[in-house]
Amino acid sequence: MSHKNLILSLNAGSSSLKISLYALREGKAESDEEPVQLLLTSSVSGISAPPAKFSFKPSSGNAQSVKDENIESIHDHASAFAHFLERLEKDASIDRNAIQYICHRVVHGGDYVEPVEITNESYHHIEKLSDLAPLHNGSALSVIKSCIEALPKSKSIAYFDTTFHTSIPVHISSYAIDPEIAKKRGLKKYGFHGLSYAFILGAVSKFLNKPTESLNLIILHLGSGASACAIRAGKSFDTSMGLTPLHGLPGATRSGTIDPSLIFHYTNKAGRITHDPGMASDIHVTQAEDILNRKAGWKALCGTTDFGIISDKAELDKDDQNGHISKTNLNRLAFDLFVDRILGYVGSYHLKLGGEVDALVFSGGIGERSVALRDRIGEKIRCLGYQDVDRDRNGKVAASDGAVSEISTGVSRRKILVVKTDEQLEMTRECVSDKKLWA
Amino acid sequence: MSHKNLILSLNAGSSSLKISLYALREGKAESDEEPVQLLLTSSVSGISAPPAKFSFKPSSGNAQSVKDENIESIHDHASAFAHFLERLEKDASIDRNAIQYICHRVVHGGDYVEPVEITNESYHHIEKLSDLAPLHNGSALSVIKSCIEALPKSKSIAYFDTTFHTSIPVHISSYAIDPEIAKKRGLKKYGFHGLSYAFILGAVSKFLNKPTESLNLIILHLGSGASACAIRAGKSFDTSMGLTPLHGLPGATRSGTIDPSLIFHYTNKAGRITHDPGMASDIHVTQAEDILNRKAGWKALCGTTDFGIISDKAELDKDDQNGHISKTNLNRLAFDLFVDRILGYVGSYHLKLGGEVDALVFSGGIGERSVALRDRIGEKIRCLGYQDVDRDRNGKVAASDGAVSEISTGVSRRKILVVKTDEQLEMTRECVSDKKLWA
Repeated sequence: MSHKNLILSLNAGSSSLKISLYALREGKAESDEEPVQLLLTSSVSGISAPPAKFSFKPSSGNAQSVKDENIESIHDHASAFAHFLERLEKDASIDRNAIQYICHRVVHGGDYVEPVEITNESYHHIEKLSDLAPLHNGSALSVIKSCIEALPKSKSIAYFDTTFHTSIPVHISSYAIDPEIAKKRGLKKYGFHGLSYAFILGAVSKFLNKPTESLNLIILHLGSGASACAIRAGKSFDTSMGLTPLHGLPGATRSGTIDPSLIFHYTNKAGRITHDPGMASDIHVTQAEDILNRKAGWKALCGTTDFGIISDKAELDKDDQNGHISKTNLNRLAFDLFVDRILGYVGSYHLKLGGEVDALVFSGGIGERSVALRDRIGEKIRCLGYQDVDRDRNGKVAASDGAVSEISTGVSRRKILVVKTDEQLEMTRECVSDKKLWA
Repeated sequence: MSHKNLILSLNAGSSSLKISLYALREGKAESDEEPVQLLLTSSVSGISAPPAKFSFKPSSGNAQSVKDENIESIHDHASAFAHFLERLEKDASIDRNAIQYICHRVVHGGDYVEPVEITNESYHHIEKLSDLAPLHNGSALSVIKSCIEALPKSKSIAYFDTTFHTSIPVHISSYAIDPEIAKKRGLKKYGFHGLSYAFILGAVSKFLNKPTESLNLIILHLGSGASACAIRAGKSFDTSMGLTPLHGLPGATRSGTIDPSLIFHYTNKAGRITHDPGMASDIHVTQAEDILNRKAGWKALCGTTDFGIISDKAELDKDDQNGHISKTNLNRLAFDLFVDRILGYVGSYHLKLGGEVDALVFSGGIGERSVALRDRIGEKIRCLGYQDVDRDRNGKVAASDGAVSEISTGVSRRKILVVKTDEQLEMTRECVSDKKLWA
């Protein structure tokens, strides 16, 4: 197979690497036609819990699909990427030199208001601002390094999760702390999951056939990291994550919002640097941040990071006579706690948007899969004038990337949707539409 | 003047002491008659910024009122209380031995589900649980100690701000952290301002002529410490403060909710014990807690703890062409930030109460005084079906203790009220109605 103008889109998580490879369509595309064609997807999971598992799925052609193959040689993000490149040539016969652009999802972009091409200078700048997010930027930085070495002819571009949120007004993004120290150290609400929110906004705009700038949405990106976003007139107006992805909703191993003094009563070593062997030795993270990011959340509450299991074991139909849940059912506690925190943000954003909301959108692994969670949230928000969740529709949500499913029915303008988000495609689209790159 | 059955009600803040002295009414009271009569109020302010100012105001009789008299001999809460006792006898001719009960407001009561008479045992228990709130319980403890020494014949009873919130369901009061560590160290949402919320609930019940257990309310207690509370069926269902009063809304010198990792980027000494000379040497507080409780909030943002000044200087009518506030007007930033965070809780609690809300209530120094703030919040919540704030009524709010003012008009069930709260009277009422004490 021979291609020119390939775009590789890389999404590095703390222990995973998701990859999509696209080809630019030949000729001038129709205005609503996707400008790129997906050639293959690949992923590596369990990078920090070897053996890592490798999957590889060509969209068409003769190449074999591979699912969850154990690969002993993968021990970090660099070796994961190296393995992918090998298989790209061996299994799919695609020449790595045909890759023109590489899009990298970088979680924390500090004050970058747009994507940035990787140069020596920008690389070091991103490295520096990663002090704010050592747990979150590290894996992307190591993949960027690998790309520079293995694909010297391709251009790498960093796309930030924070960029989408630069529209948040200053009185919402500021904390009530010393403004000089805040400015000097960059202490403000940045917000994350921005690539996902941008993708969802576009998908909903197309689905409702309304221009993005006319849309007010409340979007829930609920995955192992979970956040909520209020979109006003097509722009981020508020979001639940803050200076780092720790703030806001709880997640698989994250506490979410807690009393700021809690951690000092949890451990008297909160401010010390952690020496957890599971963490790379060159990153400096306090024990507090390690505990709250990696040793809290569902995993700490009920021993699993899988919300599907939590939901199944929660015995949602069983309350005691007073309507209280059993204190010993920690799965039920986790489920109800998550619902409570989500409702907090939905209620807050509904009011902040003046009640002018076109749709509530579920996305992310949990948002796309948890029928029970959508059902519960839907039931609770009826009082705000949202449409009813339809049992049939809620049970049959489209599983393909980019798909929008409407799960509500009724006369209200306020719909309830599920969108299967696609951060890699969002980056690729932004890459294709960036005139500077294709001059 | 001679009395029996006097009840002294003491409310110690970090740098102040508020005092009310009541006499039990003779004979059997009518069911809606106040069971006590206020004899005098007194206060000491500026205890940590000498010279402290002493005020003394008898309700009737010949004794002279005193306002903001500088008293050089006051240097802590013990000497403040000693000075009050002196003046009680000298200026008001009231014998201290006529004081039968002394009610103490204690901020953090841990898991106490009711008030507790001070004994050696309970004193040490309160002292121990004050590890969770060293900044908040210290002054009350030192006043309790003074009372035991100076008034050995009177009984001291501790009333906790946390007691009112023991009704919060476990999935709302739990944090998404290791449940064993949480249990062992008492890490959960306790909530505060409970005496104020209990008083307001009673006052609103009387005003609306509805039993407390039928009421759903959203109450905002906005003072130098600020919090919000959702009342469902007459009980606390959720509140914005958490393990300590730091969580939730920002205040005069408190940050309120921030990203839990922020403080480690603010200072690399977050976990160390502070040696601020403004703090008593026997309490152990981390630098993080000291900064976030005492060096943040309005004071850090705009140099004053006086929200009236902030509101005046905020130039609320001036926006730039894009509707953005000037980044250099920090008073405006503080005002808008406070409104944003308050709206967040109002929206959240409105939804958590299923939209079934009888009234939104403003209270606390700022809630009672800031016409501009009430006006702004009122305007924003109209979309949820609250009555309109009436300009005339909003400008003329009754100033006497316990007064309820309705500032809204309209057909909706959802009213907007202002209540001048009275924590000392709440404790005294609870004391009078406690059958164990009067057997």
